[in-house]
Amino acid sequence: MRAVDIIMNKRAGKELSGQELDFLIGGYVRGEIPDYQVSAWAMAVFFRGMTPAETASLTKIMLNSGKIIDLSDLPGPFVDKHSTGGVGDKTSLILAPLVASLGIYDPMMSGRALGHTGGTLDKLESIPGYRTSLSVDEFKKFIARDGFAMTGQTSDIVPADRLLYALRDVSATVESIPLITASILSKKAAEGTKGLVLDVKFGSGAFMKDPSEGEKLARSLVDTGAALGLKVSALLTDMNEPLGNMVGNFLEVEESLDCLEGTGSEDLMEVTLELAARMVVLGGKAANKTEARAICEKALAGGKPRELFFRNIESQGGKMNEVLELRGKYRSPVSSEIKAKQSGFISRIDALKIGQAAVHLGVGRNRTGDSVSPTAGVQFLAKSGAKVKAGDLIMNVWAGDETGLRTALPMLGDAVEYSDTAPSKRNLILKEI
Amino acid sequence: MRAVDIIMNKRAGKELSGQELDFLIGGYVRGEIPDYQVSAWAMAVFFRGMTPAETASLTKIMLNSGKIIDLSDLPGPFVDKHSTGGVGDKTSLILAPLVASLGIYDPMMSGRALGHTGGTLDKLESIPGYRTSLSVDEFKKFIARDGFAMTGQTSDIVPADRLLYALRDVSATVESIPLITASILSKKAAEGTKGLVLDVKFGSGAFMKDPSEGEKLARSLVDTGAALGLKVSALLTDMNEPLGNMVGNFLEVEESLDCLEGTGSEDLMEVTLELAARMVVLGGKAANKTEARAICEKALAGGKPRELFFRNIESQGGKMNEVLELRGKYRSPVSSEIKAKQSGFISRIDALKIGQAAVHLGVGRNRTGDSVSPTAGVQFLAKSGAKVKAGDLIMNVWAGDETGLRTALPMLGDAVEYSDTAPSKRNLILKEI
Repeated sequence: MRAVDIIMNKRAGKELSGQELDFLIGGYVRGEIPDYQVSAWAMAVFFRGMTPAETASLTKIMLNSGKIIDLSDLPGPFVDKHSTGGVGDKTSLILAPLVASLGIYDPMMSGRALGHTGGTLDKLESIPGYRTSLSVDEFKKFIARDGFAMTGQTSDIVPADRLLYALRDVSATVESIPLITASILSKKAAEGTKGLVLDVKFGSGAFMKDPSEGEKLARSLVDTGAALGLKVSALLTDMNEPLGNMVGNFLEVEESLDCLEGTGSEDLMEVTLELAARMVVLGGKAANKTEARAICEKALAGGKPRELFFRNIESQGGKMNEVLELRGKYRSPVSSEIKAKQSGFISRIDALKIGQAAVHLGVGRNRTGDSVSPTAGVQFLAKSGAKVKAGDLIMNVWAGDETGLRTALPMLGDAVEYSDTAPSKRNLILKEI
Repeated sequence: MRAVDIIMNKRAGKELSGQELDFLIGGYVRGEIPDYQVSAWAMAVFFRGMTPAETASLTKIMLNSGKIIDLSDLPGPFVDKHSTGGVGDKTSLILAPLVASLGIYDPMMSGRALGHTGGTLDKLESIPGYRTSLSVDEFKKFIARDGFAMTGQTSDIVPADRLLYALRDVSATVESIPLITASILSKKAAEGTKGLVLDVKFGSGAFMKDPSEGEKLARSLVDTGAALGLKVSALLTDMNEPLGNMVGNFLEVEESLDCLEGTGSEDLMEVTLELAARMVVLGGKAANKTEARAICEKALAGGKPRELFFRNIESQGGKMNEVLELRGKYRSPVSSEIKAKQSGFISRIDALKIGQAAVHLGVGRNRTGDSVSPTAGVQFLAKSGAKVKAGDLIMNVWAGDETGLRTALPMLGDAVEYSDTAPSKRNLILKEI
């Protein structure tokens, strides 16, 4: 077997066998195949795609490149959620305690903010003392005790993905549906979950701008997940506008707490409950999503999810009292406001522009490794559909520093689009796959 | 400027600017850009192609990566020929002394056999004492004295091509018309020639099997040559059957000598004279190719080309007397024959099968650096169109060793195709571009 022949076959649009993929990608991880062959293969994959069988083979090779967390001591069921990334998307923080309160274990490994999209780990780390680098033993112990735990990936989980992603990032081969599929599913399978609900976002603030591209990715994820023996369902959700009323790190922890207390914004609650309902169905705790959604709403009203949220914070090093004390006050001193430029209706607040401005505010980062501010961010006082008068307050803004604030303010103002008539209501859940 | 953005633009089918190509490929040659980005770019070029302006930019960047031979001391004209490679193709050895006898300088830098295709340097080195590694000073001195010289590329000529070709070879990105164009033309422009006749071969024994692919390459070469200020013309010639009656190293030197003495086989003479006529027209020594061809035929009859052939051999370290003594006798002792399997007409002798068998005989090599035999090869006693009886002698075969001979013999036998009726005559020159 020669790497060059394998690349040539992919270039010609042929299906590669599991052995060929293991020779090339397994070989790359083992240090036997050089990066210049793998980047050429990735570019050929960009143009030629992969069959479902190939995508499943690649995912398994990546999964088996490292440690797979074994949760078989626990009875299950195990269900996690993965989002393809958006702006103001804090659903993970609400979903994990919510489904845990219904007897579903959620072994959650999350990522960090990059570019205009936020990251669950950065949000959690805004809680003073909260640790996101759990050992595998701690991760398992907290899941057993609280029903869920939230951690970053350790370096021994899917090392193939770290290597391959770093190479794709510099060789312009990130935007390939089968490669994205293998990256997502190998990491989710490695964390020990058996069920997975995918929140595939489309729109300006999403990785996939176009719903049809999002749908292709969703189908690839569902099909490949099935080939790996995972129960997977996917929702295609709208990310043209930030989700909820807060974009920031501690700001989003607060908004998650609001939701757990029943006072979350409508759009955020809608997406959260739709995702939660699918998790509950996959976890076998309800026969269908209507029943599941009712169970979730009842659980929130009962207060158990909020209790588990604080239990997790205490387990992972934070303090409940401190969070409650900081609530509404933990804000950067460098602040400003955005006011309505004109009277009329807000037709949209562009998620991409908000996400890009948020990087300047210090919420996110452009490069891996840059630090973020816990207390920076944006609070929306009006969103699409709201009727405003010129000069009305639309956003409160907090920034890590003055320079960032000055750069972000015009971007935030430009993100608000107006119309004379009330815009039609957005359909947040476009499709279930 | 970032390499990843340049790759992404090419991936999207955009035209890269000269600055972008210099950043990426110039940067690669200067050691600033890593190979994994260049191989991903090359794969994107495979799928997206390059515009004529891009191909010209790339060629210039490659040309300027090293030394360009300056022949401005000589009055010119300078015209060379380049073939895309075939089996039994010894036209270079005949063309150089032929056009030199008409006052056209041919600064010829050639390559080696690889895979099923033969190499001019290997043929020349079968002449005892003949040196193909000339210094630039020797190269220029011999061109001035004999009208031509034949050498290999030195390491300071187009180093970009060596780097890029080695990377393309292992990343499955060889078969790209713009990349092939830039590789060929940068080397030809660096040797100092101003005119170039291209022999673009198609058919089983050629790099391009399909005439339409060959024509695309020919057009790309002609257009890019013009953009570089070279006078270029191209012939699309048939390489479904080996050219001439000899395939081997010293065997082909002998056949070249036969041609220079007027006793060459019809197919070889036809291709040689058609190429020579274009060289003479480009060199300004005739108004059109009909006139040019008549001049060439007259020159061959006059004996001057043969004299220059020997003068070159003496200049480059060989001995005329020795060549004449070895003629007809310098054969490997390990030999055999191929006889007709059936009576009828030979409809074709497959160039690819002959070329592949010749590697086993020791004429060529599968890997760069393998040694070749001067005395191995095949002599055809009958070719397509010949009427044969079962058992008639079709080929004499000489091999470097017994193992090679045993492997090659069935391949050689299988290369002969038969028909009951006389095959139609092949049109050797399909098109002029």
